[in-house]
Amino acid sequence: MKKAVFYHAGCPVCVAAEQQVLDALDQGRYELEVVHLGADRSRIVEAEQAGIQSVPALLLDEGVFHINFGASLADVKGGA
Amino acid sequence: MKKAVFYHAGCPVCVAAEQQVLDALDQGRYELEVVHLGADRSRIVEAEQAGIQSVPALLLDEGVFHINFGASLADVKGGA
Repeated sequence: MKKAVFYHAGCPVCVAAEQQVLDALDQGRYELEVVHLGADRSRIVEAEQAGIQSVPALLLDEGVFHINFGASLADVKGGA
Repeated sequence: MKKAVFYHAGCPVCVAAEQQVLDALDQGRYELEVVHLGADRSRIVEAEQAGIQSVPALLLDEGVFHINFGASLADVKGGA
């Protein structure tokens, strides 16, 4: 199984994207973890190091998909 | 089968995203069509009407995923 991590911050754009990612991702091949960076702030550093610049974003083995635009990571860090 | 349309314009960001979408999308449930808006300009109007603002983008039944940022649709229309 490949790993996929969906990072979000609870914003409306994030929630809508999460439903679509859950539906569209091949969960027979990808194990999906959903991380709420607002609720689990200890994961923000990891997200930054992975190249996440805004949420919602999907991290796959091969790179980052920034999906639409909910909030910048700077906003999430600032507690917005 | 649900329909998914991946719109791109041949840009490097587009090509990288295409490979990842092809890999991650559940192709047992989604039928994926890939549209190169630079090569098939007659599809630009359809993309606009679907809410595509930039490429690469993935259109699902439920809405549009703008994935990262390669080029605005205005740039594609302008032939950039």
